[in-house]
Formats: sequence, C-alpha cells, structure tokens
Amino acid sequence: MFMEITSLGEPRFDSPLDRVVSDLVRVPENIHIPVSGTAQPGELFELAGPRRKLFFDAKNTRAGIVTCGGLSPGLNNVIRSLFLELHHVYGVKEVLGFREGYKGLDPERGKEPVILTAELVDDIHNEGGTILDTSRGPVDTALAVDNLIRRKVDILFTIGGDGTQRGGNELFQEARKRNHPLAVVGVPKTVDNDVAFISRTFGYFTAVEEASKVIDCAHTEAHSVENGISLVKLMGRHAGFIAAGATVANQDVNFCLIPEVPFRLEGPRGFLPVLEKRILNRGHAVIVVAEGAGQDLLGAEGEDKDASGNVKLRDIGLFLRDKITGHFKSRGISMTFRYFDPNYIIRSVPADAEDSILCDLYARNAVHAAMAGKTGLVIGLVHEQFVHIPIELLAARKKRVDPASVAWHAVLASTGQPAVFE
Amino acid sequence: MFMEITSLGEPRFDSPLDRVVSDLVRVPENIHIPVSGTAQPGELFELAGPRRKLFFDAKNTRAGIVTCGGLSPGLNNVIRSLFLELHHVYGVKEVLGFREGYKGLDPERGKEPVILTAELVDDIHNEGGTILDTSRGPVDTALAVDNLIRRKVDILFTIGGDGTQRGGNELFQEARKRNHPLAVVGVPKTVDNDVAFISRTFGYFTAVEEASKVIDCAHTEAHSVENGISLVKLMGRHAGFIAAGATVANQDVNFCLIPEVPFRLEGPRGFLPVLEKRILNRGHAVIVVAEGAGQDLLGAEGEDKDASGNVKLRDIGLFLRDKITGHFKSRGISMTFRYFDPNYIIRSVPADAEDSILCDLYARNAVHAAMAGKTGLVIGLVHEQFVHIPIELLAARKKRVDPASVAWHAVLASTGQPAVFE
Amino acid sequence: MFMEITSLGEPRFDSPLDRVVSDLVRVPENIHIPVSGTAQPGELFELAGPRRKLFFDAKNTRAGIVTCGGLSPGLNNVIRSLFLELHHVYGVKEVLGFREGYKGLDPERGKEPVILTAELVDDIHNEGGTILDTSRGPVDTALAVDNLIRRKVDILFTIGGDGTQRGGNELFQEARKRNHPLAVVGVPKTVDNDVAFISRTFGYFTAVEEASKVIDCAHTEAHSVENGISLVKLMGRHAGFIAAGATVANQDVNFCLIPEVPFRLEGPRGFLPVLEKRILNRGHAVIVVAEGAGQDLLGAEGEDKDASGNVKLRDIGLFLRDKITGHFKSRGISMTFRYFDPNYIIRSVPADAEDSILCDLYARNAVHAAMAGKTGLVIGLVHEQFVHIPIELLAARKKRVDPASVAWHAVLASTGQPAVFE
Amino acid sequence: MFMEITSLGEPRFDSPLDRVVSDLVRVPENIHIPVSGTAQPGELFELAGPRRKLFFDAKNTRAGIVTCGGLSPGLNNVIRSLFLELHHVYGVKEVLGFREGYKGLDPERGKEPVILTAELVDDIHNEGGTILDTSRGPVDTALAVDNLIRRKVDILFTIGGDGTQRGGNELFQEARKRNHPLAVVGVPKTVDNDVAFISRTFGYFTAVEEASKVIDCAHTEAHSVENGISLVKLMGRHAGFIAAGATVANQDVNFCLIPEVPFRLEGPRGFLPVLEKRILNRGHAVIVVAEGAGQDLLGAEGEDKDASGNVKLRDIGLFLRDKITGHFKSRGISMTFRYFDPNYIIRSVPADAEDSILCDLYARNAVHAAMAGKTGLVIGLVHEQFVHIPIELLAARKKRVDPASVAWHAVLASTGQPAVFE
Repeated sequence: MFMEITSLGEPRFDSPLDRVVSDLVRVPENIHIPVSGTAQPGELFELAGPRRKLFFDAKNTRAGIVTCGGLSPGLNNVIRSLFLELHHVYGVKEVLGFREGYKGLDPERGKEPVILTAELVDDIHNEGGTILDTSRGPVDTALAVDNLIRRKVDILFTIGGDGTQRGGNELFQEARKRNHPLAVVGVPKTVDNDVAFISRTFGYFTAVEEASKVIDCAHTEAHSVENGISLVKLMGRHAGFIAAGATVANQDVNFCLIPEVPFRLEGPRGFLPVLEKRILNRGHAVIVVAEGAGQDLLGAEGEDKDASGNVKLRDIGLFLRDKITGHFKSRGISMTFRYFDPNYIIRSVPADAEDSILCDLYARNAVHAAMAGKTGLVIGLVHEQFVHIPIELLAARKKRVDPASVAWHAVLASTGQPAVFE
Repeated sequence: MFMEITSLGEPRFDSPLDRVVSDLVRVPENIHIPVSGTAQPGELFELAGPRRKLFFDAKNTRAGIVTCGGLSPGLNNVIRSLFLELHHVYGVKEVLGFREGYKGLDPERGKEPVILTAELVDDIHNEGGTILDTSRGPVDTALAVDNLIRRKVDILFTIGGDGTQRGGNELFQEARKRNHPLAVVGVPKTVDNDVAFISRTFGYFTAVEEASKVIDCAHTEAHSVENGISLVKLMGRHAGFIAAGATVANQDVNFCLIPEVPFRLEGPRGFLPVLEKRILNRGHAVIVVAEGAGQDLLGAEGEDKDASGNVKLRDIGLFLRDKITGHFKSRGISMTFRYFDPNYIIRSVPADAEDSILCDLYARNAVHAAMAGKTGLVIGLVHEQFVHIPIELLAARKKRVDPASVAWHAVLASTGQPAVFE
Repeated sequence: MFMEITSLGEPRFDSPLDRVVSDLVRVPENIHIPVSGTAQPGELFELAGPRRKLFFDAKNTRAGIVTCGGLSPGLNNVIRSLFLELHHVYGVKEVLGFREGYKGLDPERGKEPVILTAELVDDIHNEGGTILDTSRGPVDTALAVDNLIRRKVDILFTIGGDGTQRGGNELFQEARKRNHPLAVVGVPKTVDNDVAFISRTFGYFTAVEEASKVIDCAHTEAHSVENGISLVKLMGRHAGFIAAGATVANQDVNFCLIPEVPFRLEGPRGFLPVLEKRILNRGHAVIVVAEGAGQDLLGAEGEDKDASGNVKLRDIGLFLRDKITGHFKSRGISMTFRYFDPNYIIRSVPADAEDSILCDLYARNAVHAAMAGKTGLVIGLVHEQFVHIPIELLAARKKRVDPASVAWHAVLASTGQPAVFE
Repeated sequence: MFMEITSLGEPRFDSPLDRVVSDLVRVPENIHIPVSGTAQPGELFELAGPRRKLFFDAKNTRAGIVTCGGLSPGLNNVIRSLFLELHHVYGVKEVLGFREGYKGLDPERGKEPVILTAELVDDIHNEGGTILDTSRGPVDTALAVDNLIRRKVDILFTIGGDGTQRGGNELFQEARKRNHPLAVVGVPKTVDNDVAFISRTFGYFTAVEEASKVIDCAHTEAHSVENGISLVKLMGRHAGFIAAGATVANQDVNFCLIPEVPFRLEGPRGFLPVLEKRILNRGHAVIVVAEGAGQDLLGAEGEDKDASGNVKLRDIGLFLRDKITGHFKSRGISMTFRYFDPNYIIRSVPADAEDSILCDLYARNAVHAAMAGKTGLVIGLVHEQFVHIPIELLAARKKRVDPASVAWHAVLASTGQPAVFE
C-alpha cells in the first residue's frame, strides 16, 4: 500500500544540489521474502532526499523550527542541521526559531521567535536540551496559522512526538484552507523509540548508553553487599525499548520488565519467588523496569483512584520497591534495596556520535522534503533508508517490543529470566 | 599538642625499603604563621611513611582487611594497594579479606574470609564498590578478637568511617588485654569528606566529579523550559563538602544549601522569595542541597514523629520540592520542577585518577605504620602530608564547611546567592 | 540471486528454543522498489536465527572460538555471548578458546587453548581487546584440521576480517574431505566497516565515537592559536567510513579526505589552495584523513620504492603534514600545525552500548547457524536483518563509501568542502 | 626567609567583601617540624585572599587578561572566574581579553583585544583551549606598556609559564618607570606541574586523568597479543610529574621513565635486558616515558647535531621505539610494538571537576591581590594554602620529581621496576 505524500504544488525551481533522488522510488515496510509464495511488502514509503526541482524559491523563503515535548538527546543537533542545510545549502532568506514548543506559535502566549544565525547555532550540538526551549500541549490552530502567515513563514519544521506531528498536520491543513502554501515537515522525537515504521528515533541510543552506565552503578551497589537488590526504573510509558536495549547492552541485568510483557508477582513462578530464589542462590540482583510496565498490577491494587473513580496509576518503581521489600521482610530474609530513577539524567545529555549523525540526516532530509513542497509528513527511517511517512499513517500505528523478536530474545538470553512470570 | 601513637613494642626487624621516615618528625595542624607574635601550631601529627625497623617479621605475619559502611569510590584500590604493599614489598605470609564489614569478623555471623592473591586483586581497581562486600554496624569485640587470635591475624586494616575506626580501636585494646599484639590501622573512608584533620578522603573528588555531571543535566533540564527549576540532592549528612565542591566545579548552580549554613524559606530575604525573583528575572534555576541541610526547618514542620515522640527527619529534598512547588502555585507562577537524587550513582563509580593515587598512598602508608608496630591510628592527610592520627583524637573533632572559608566564598561567588537567607 | 548456504547434513535434534526462524525466508540486497518497472532485489540472503532442528547434539558438542587480526571494540563481547549462548542456551559440552588467532590452531606454534567458563567470561565485556589474544596471518590448513579433529571440535567460530573468513572456509572444506562435519561460522570483524552486504560491523561506531572525541581536541588546538591547522589521521585503508562518520558526528571538521574520493593538492581548486583560503578567512582548520586516502599522490611522489621497484606507500598523514607546512612556508603564512594519529586509542576501548548489543546479536545468531549445521558462512546485517552470507559471496565484493550516497553528502554539507579538489 | 610583595601604593578603597585576609600571615615552605631541634621553615609566603582595603577604585579600573604558551585544561575557567570576580564581585569598569598571548599586547602585531562580557564567558569553562588564543614568545616591553597605558589598563593578569611570568614582571617594572601603577598578577600555568613552591598547577590532574585513559588503551593493545609492548610518551620536558602521576593512577604500567631518574639501556641491569625479562616472563609490557627522559642517552648517540655542533635532542619516544625493536630483533624474540604520542589529546580537554575548582580559586585570589595593589607576583598553592609568590623568587627555583619522595616510591611500588637501570 502506498499513501501519497501531499504536495503544495508543482516544483519549479532548480535545486542547488547535484545529487537528487526520484519521487518514484519506494521502500517496503516488510522485506522478508518467502522462497515460495508472494512477498507482502506492507506499506510502501517514498524515499527521502533532495529533489531535482524545488517548490520554494529559496531566496524568498522563510522557515521556522519548533521543538515540543520532553527532552531527547540531539534536539540541538537537529535544530543546527536544519539551519545549516536551509542556510548554507539552499540559501533560504531567514530561519526563525519559535520558542517553548507550540506555545511559541501563539502570538499571545509565546515569546518572540529568535532569528537563527550560523554563529548562534555554532556550538549548540555539544549541549543537551534545546536552545529553543520546549513545552507540552497543543496550540490554537487558527491563531498559529494567522501568526505564521503574518510572519511570512513558508516552511515549519516540527520536532516532536505523535501529538506534535498531528498538530503539525492540522496547521498545514488550516493553512491550505487559507491558500497559504505551508510545508509542515516533522522530525519524529521520542526517546522511547516507539514510533511506527521508524527503526530508530534520535536520542534513543544515547539514552540506552546512559542507562547502561546507571545499571553499572546499580550492579556495583547490589554486588557490594549481601543480598543486594537494585531496581532501576527507566523511561518507556508504552514501549520497553530503552529497558530492553540497556539490558542487552549492559549484560549485568537479571530481570527486565516492560509494558509489552505482563508479569505476575505472586505464585510459584511469579516474579517475587523467582527473585527470592536468585537472591538465595547468587546473593544479589539487578532489576530494570520500564515505567509503563505492570500497569495491570497497579490497577489491581485498586488503591489510588481519582475523583472520577478512574484508577490513577501508581509509580511502578515505588510499587515494586514496596512489594519487594515487603516480600523479603515477610520471608525473613534480610536484604539491602537500592532504587534508581535516572530518567532526567539520561535524556538531557548531548547526543553521542551515532545519534549526532542520525540527527544530521533526519534534519537534512526534512529540509529536502520541505523545499520540494512536500507537506504533512515526517521523515522516517525504514530498514536504514530515510523515507517520507504521511502523518496520518504514522498516527494509525504504534511500535512496541515484540516478545517474539530477536531483541526480546536477546533480553531473555542475557538476563536468564523466564519468558513469563506466572 | 602531640598525642603519642601507640606502639606494640620495640621494632626489631629490618625494613626491605631504602627510603625511611623518622618517628621524630611532626606536621602541625595550623600552618598560618603571624608576622608578629607566636605561631599556634595546634595538634602535631607524626609523619607517616616506612620506618627503618619493623615490629613484625613479615614472613610470619598475617594481615586482614575489612571494608565497612557505605560505598565510596576507591575502596577496591585501597584493598589492592594494601595487598600489593604487604605481599610484594614486605613479603607478608598471608592477607585475609574479611567479608561484609565487621560482620565478617564474627565467626558465627560472617562468611569465611577470602585469601587475597595477586591474581584476585589484579583488575579490581577498575571497578566501583568493594570486592569484600560491606555492611553497617559493629561487631562483638570479644568474639572478633577471639577470631583474629585463632586465625593468627597480626594486623587488621579497617577501611571505614568514624564508627568503624572507633570499633577498630576497641579491637586493639581488647587484643592487648589478651596479650595478642594486634596492629589496627585505619584508612578513613567518608565520601562526605568530613573527617577532622584530613584534607581529603578518597572518593570525595570522584563523587564531586560525578555530581557535577548530574548538575549539568539538571541545568539542561531547567534551561530547556520556561521557568524550569532543578533541585539536586547530594550526599552530606553533617557536612556540605560535596554540595559545595560540585557547585564551584560546575559553575551553573544558582543556590547551594548545606547543613553548616542555616536558611529560612519565608520572609523578604528567605529562600523562596529569592528563588522566585531569580525565576522571574532569568527563567530558570538550579538548586543543590546537601541531604543534611535545613534539618531545623524539617523539625519545625513537626509533622513526622516516631513512636517516642522524637522528630523523625523528613527528606530535605522532597520537603523543598513540596515547598517550592507550593510557593509557585500559591504565587500563580507556572514552572516546571525536576528532582534529582543521584547519590547511589555518584558513590558507586570507580575512582578517578587522582583518587586512585590517593588510595594507593593511603594504603601503602597504612602498611608502613602497621609493619612498624603502630596501632590505634588512622592514616591522615594534613597539608598534603600523610600522617598518623590517633583514633581517639579523630573521634574528638569533626570537619565542617567553614562559612568563612575560601571554599564557601567560592560557592557564594559562583552562585551569586546571598550569604544568608533570612 | 541466492547462493545456497552449505549444510553439514540433516538437522535432527530438537532446539531448546521456543522462537524459531524458517530456512525459507530471504532478505534482498536492494530494497528500493521503482513505482513502475520491476524491482531488482540483487542478492538474496537467508534470514539468520534459531532453527527448529539442530544438526549437533549439544551435550556431545565441542565448540572453539578464535579471534584474528587487529583489535576492534567488542571482541570480548562476541566471545562472551558466543559462550553464553552455547553454554546456557544450547548446553554444549565444552567451549575452547584458541589463543593468538589462527596461530592457536596450529599445535606446533600455538599455545594450549583455554577452556571457557561462565566465571572466566563474566566481566570481559567491560574490557577492550581480546582475552584470547590475536595475531595476523594464516594457518596451515591441514595441521589445523588435524588439530580440530583430534580435539573433537565440531564447531569453530572465526572472528576476523576477510582473510580470516576465507581461511575459515578452507578449514571447513578440508574437514569435509576428511569426513569431519565441521561447522565454521564467521563473525565479521572490521573496525573500518568495509564488509560487503553488512551495514555495520561491531566496533565501528565505538571507533567513530572515540574518533570524534579526538577531533574535539584537534579543533580545540586549532582554534586556540592563530592559523591553527590540526590534521587527524584515522583508520580506513580502503574505505573512509570512520573518517566520514566521525566528520558528520563531530561537525567541526572542515576537510575530510578518504580513499574513495581522489583529490589534487595543487592547482586553483586543489586542496592546498583551498586550505589556504580557509585559513586566511577563518584562522583555523581541522582536517580528517583516512589512512588509505590519496595513495595516488604518494605514488606520484615516486620517492619510496622497495627492492622490487614497487612503490612503497608513504604515510598519508606525514605526507600531508609535510605538504601543508611546506605550502604555508612557501606562501609566507605563519601557522601552527598539530598532528593526531589516534588509531590505537580508538580501537582498544570497550564497546559502547550499541556495539555491545550488536556483538550480542551477531554472536547468538552465529551459534544458531552453527548448531543447525550450517557452515562456510558469516553472519551479516542487511537492512537491519541478521542474515547468513556465504563466505564465497563475501569475498567477491567490497564495501566502499559511495560519493553519491547520503552519507558522503552529509560529509560535504557538514564540512562545506568542495565535492572535488581539482 | 620572606621576600616582600611589591605594592603599588597605599590601599584606600573599601572592599565589597565581608571576608578579608590580613597581610600579616605567612605560610612556610617547609612544615616538617623535628621533635628536637629547630624547625627550618624555608621561604615564607604571604597568604592570598581579599584584603580589607583596595588600591584601585573598581568603578574606574580596567583590567586585561592574557593567556600564553601551550594549552592546559582550565584556561577558559581561569579567564571566566577572573572576569566574574572582577565584574560581579568588585564591579570593575571593563575587562579586556588580549588575543594570542603576548603578541596581543603589541599594537602592531596583535589583534584588537576583545571586551569581555558575562554573556561571552558564560559557557566557556565547558570547553578546552583558550577563547583568547595563545602564542609563544615575548613582547617588546616598551611597546606593550605604551599600549597598556594608552588603553588605560590598570591590572594585567598573565596566565602562563615561567617565561610569561618573567615577562609580566618586566611589564610592571617598565610601567613603574613611567609612573603608571600597573598591577601584574600571574596565574601559573604548566600542565607539567613543575613550578616551584606550587603543589599543583591547574590542568595537571586533568592531564593525568586523560593520560591514564591512554595507558588503558596501551595496556589493552599490549595484552591482546603475544609479547606486546606499548610505549606511551607523555609530557614533561624537565619534570616527570605527569608520567609518574599517570603511572600510579593507572596501576598497569610496568616501567616509568622520567627526566629526574637517569637510566641505562644496556648492561645486565639496563632497561632493555630488564624489559626482555619481563616480556619472557609475562608476555606483555607497558612503558611510560616523559618526553624529557633519557636526554643523556640521546646525546650519547651523537647522531644529530645542529650546525653549531650542539647535540640536537632526538625524540626519546622514537629513540626508545628503535632501541626496543632493535633489541628484540637482535635477540630473535618476536614481539608487537605500539607507540602512543597522545599529548595534544591530553592537554586540550576541558578541566575536570577538581581542576575547575582550582582554576576558580586561583583566579579569584589573583583578583584579590591585584585589587589590593599588589604586583610582580603569581598566585601559588603551598600546602593547600593559596599564597603570593614574588615572580623573582619563582624564577630562582624549579620543581622536580624527587626520587626520594613518596610519589616516586609509589611509582616504584606500582610498577615493580628497579630503582635504577644500570
């Protein structure tokens, strides 16, 4: 299946680049080909890259950049490479940095955008965070489009997660209604790495690297006392990619718990008895838990409800801490428990070398798409190919750790934990 | 004043070392000399180092090592250098590693000690924690001395804090009563760096280095949103050396709160109004608080008492979090708060280069003292000179951040915070 | 095209693993699909992974591991995960570590192999290098196979580059002649990342990360003096992937020279005049050169020939140093030159988190292939899928930086250097 | 002995600081006190710190900063803290950054100085190098003083080594002749840590930390092959402090060669036979050599002389490389040699936490001295006390590694090398 990328109109200006990529190449979602029978390619994606003709006349074009949601390593790299490609390679007139996420698009709530310069962005890739500041939450689409039109912004780059990209889509649609040809091109940002059709979002592996260092500390703490148990809570509200990646990278984790693999605490093969056995046999244990894991257990506790009677999720880390210490106390086994909650430390560091490269490529491909007049898309990375993904398609699917995947089997093999705690 | 170091008897064996240090050199506590008037040297300490004659006959000597209390970077370096000096330089018969702190000296509660070898300790300095394991709490002195005598242990190295060293003193005194000449020599361990007469304990500066990295993250988080406030709680129950050191090292901290400098929250020049002003002016703030700071405020809250009616101290970090978020809420100022509690991450890393050197020198000087038959002392570092400090003297004095010191003025200068919040 | 993987015979033992992968799935070399016309998939590769039936009866199976050639970050990770998968997951009888590369297969020249244990490999992934030692050069195939048969080795894992893998192929063929069913499975190792059909070899990105740190230093040196020029020579005899990767990751490189893109020194648009212009305009420059770049220039120099009259290649780094300093001297422009040759520093560090994961997956897939009785192959990574690549196919193709690729255009964009120096 | 610090005149303005230090406190060079007999304090130094009265009226005062010579970690920290103390604490009118070392003081050769601002210096401590640029060599004193007078510079901070400080002294003397009260205060900079009376110069320990990382790589390379020998050449033209420090910090060095301890290559107990023995016994060796070590051997080679017949020193690293490879070749012992020359990598990194603190304190004490009207001095660090050292005294003495010191004995103990190679 192929969902067409929306175009603002016929590209008519020459590209300054020698290398060009055709609009007529696709990358399939599924590249496993059966020896007999027919391949099922799944979705087909348009290849990203510079096009022969541009929709926008660079010297009269103004672009804007906005960063939304939580931090992820590499935000400044993306901002910087967007600017450098726009300014040095295409020669656009001006690049505005909107401040504090979508709030910055609202002239009433937001600050004045900053005009980006080569000097301003020179060193920013060496720092974590975002020089444009970020915030959560949507913007009033009408107000934002008014503002973009008034400021003569032709292109908007939205660096953010699902919600940000959906918001970007609405901006483009609203602009179209007003006959303002606005290219909205997204760079997907999720440190959790849970965007469908995208094999890795920037910042994810830097986060795994940092998480692995924290696990080293957790292992040292557990290993330096008798019956030491260290519990590390990592990011991952809906998907356990950081937890799983850090577990395999580190190799000293004994239990990895993620949202995609439910577990029981009690019962002969429940988590607590298995942990107890490990402690009695080996004298220490390191547990990694994704923040979204075991939500059913928390609900089952039924203790915390909000005014409407909805179960208000408790913190799985603190919940497990209480359950584990309670279990060992009730079993009369003395132990030392250490709790690690390193998320802000993990996501606020600068991008590592590989994420830096990834950021550069995401950003430059986003500029290519926008200059060619494409809109309503995000840049994706499918089987190591940068592609264009329509935002509507993105919204329809989620990426999760597949318990039957190579990655999860690597977790089971490196931890030695049972496939299920039941 | 000079307090004599206890000697087990007349040294009579030749040292294998060329370089020797006399028993008759002292290092003064106070080296500020007034131009007119008389110098007040304060305490005088015996210089550490190899002695010309040894009390113990190395080839018939058995030593033991024990690590107690919380982790500090460099524990394994100390164990390793103690072993290497004993084994390679002096040629002692055997070195035992007692397991899990003082518990390991009690034959009923502890595990069998491990016999250290060159192979076993070869790489341990590259790892945090302690290969001997650690625990808190004392040991029954009589049982422990029975055990040491039965195992023919002549020398015991105690790596730990105040309590550990006092316990070591009792072991030596009990052994003396039984006519067992036991040299007990301590290597002071406190990541908080709060031991009197000792300018730096091993692990302290590694902890400052790690704390500074966390503050970088805290700064990034605060700086990447509007009105971002990051609060970093660091170690320091009674002394704010880690908080102060990390503040000056990092230079991006705006407020540093330590036990030695009381502060008020409310009032025109209280901490909360000053923080509010900073946020309104600059849009972000980084706060570092030592865990022992502001205990009077917590007490004043009077909410948490234990069964006996004693005020049970609440966590200053969580307390400040609540106070700060409450303050801004009541003032109608939106802000984003991030809390960092990185202590286990800071203390469990391997020692950095300088702490590695320090560990090596502490350990080798401890061996020199013990082989010469000195006992009831710890190795100290006074004005960059390694010295012998009688444990009794150590127990009498505490080291605290002096608000009139160069170090604290560097904190005030680098943060720009007022000298007092009142 | 699909080249069949050689099988030692009919698999007949049950796998202990739940997850299995079919022999009948292929991954195409080329996944770009034209909108009109027919896709040209290129080579088709068998998907790697655990098979339903095993050729070897694990409890009676003995495996060997050998590491050959230069160091690459992650060698110990591969050794460790091979062992863990063989031992814990499949339960093989014994795993031998042959010492010092192929030399260790020769009973006359090599040392006795080490019997690997869980304890021995426990921490080795935290160290660079290889615990098995390595060496260059081939082994006498007949002697080696004699030895493997005598030692009852059923499976040999060869971790090494092209030559190593070709040697492995010969071992399997020789064993077959003698009716000894020997599975030889390779894990490709090249820090240069220049193996055909393999998107990334382990260690490559760790090397890029380290190289980027060195470039930071080179930039600081160049930037802290007037007319500072830093030249960093990086690995890459035939392919410039490390140089290109580090250039894009770092973003402070001004010129990147690789083997795949010839350059001229002199002439109006030659490298030296362009460098001079940069120095006059900006006052500093950072140059990265892959060791195999500009070989034609060195040859053209015609100065160094060996006894047979063959041009003996001079060091491009030192050559450029002389040319650059000579050029500026002749032009009367004072400048400060700094030379960096960090290769041993880059390749001897431990693997970073992502390479650690990669090593784990390469190793476990190698075990799956061998246990299923497949031989004469290496594990490959094509479009993020682990696959089986026949060694013969591997030998026929080389991977090079494509000057028309996304990656090289990222280099041109981030440096701002001209596409050609001519 | 006490050498008076030169004062520009009677201090008459009030200090803005609460904490003040008296002019009448001294710190002795020697703090070892004999039990019997009289202490020999050696030189006496004036204690550094803020004074009650200032010579300069801050609001009318203009300061300049200049950085000279090679890089050392922390230069930017010193520049930044000088500025912050001058600007925020004392409130001086303007701070000029002279460019490219002393060249920047010469109006004909140098660039226009930069006016420092809080914004400009905000983040510079996170980068290595110096934002002011540096150069080697002196300046014409008369021209420089003309320039300083014309620019109304009252205070000059000279960050540099011996030569820089002597040059600073001449500037102040020349200014005095012209009745321009110029305070010249030096911050000693030598990554080699070889300044007399100063226990540690900034950057030294960061360099040791980095050197230790390189030694890790050298160890891995040597350890991963049979008979691997790694040679690491480190900084230290006249003093081996970096080599010795890195050796003790790292603990994996087998031989440490420094300028202060001559050695022989040949002969039964010469370096080469001892190295050979180590290789035959242990199969690998790591050697650290300071660049100034063994100069007599190089001279004895008598190969390289300049036109005047003076022995032109060859590179000890390359010399040893040739001698070692030659020796093993002649002895028919195959081995693998790796050479490491990491100096530019070591000195161009940002300061670590402890050096950052040191830089801050050096800088602020320099400002205190200058504002009080003191001149012709450098800030020193004696027994952990910041003091004033007259430049003339500094020039008269050199600091070297004392082979009888604790530090060198730690080297011998951690390497196991003989005290002499003879």
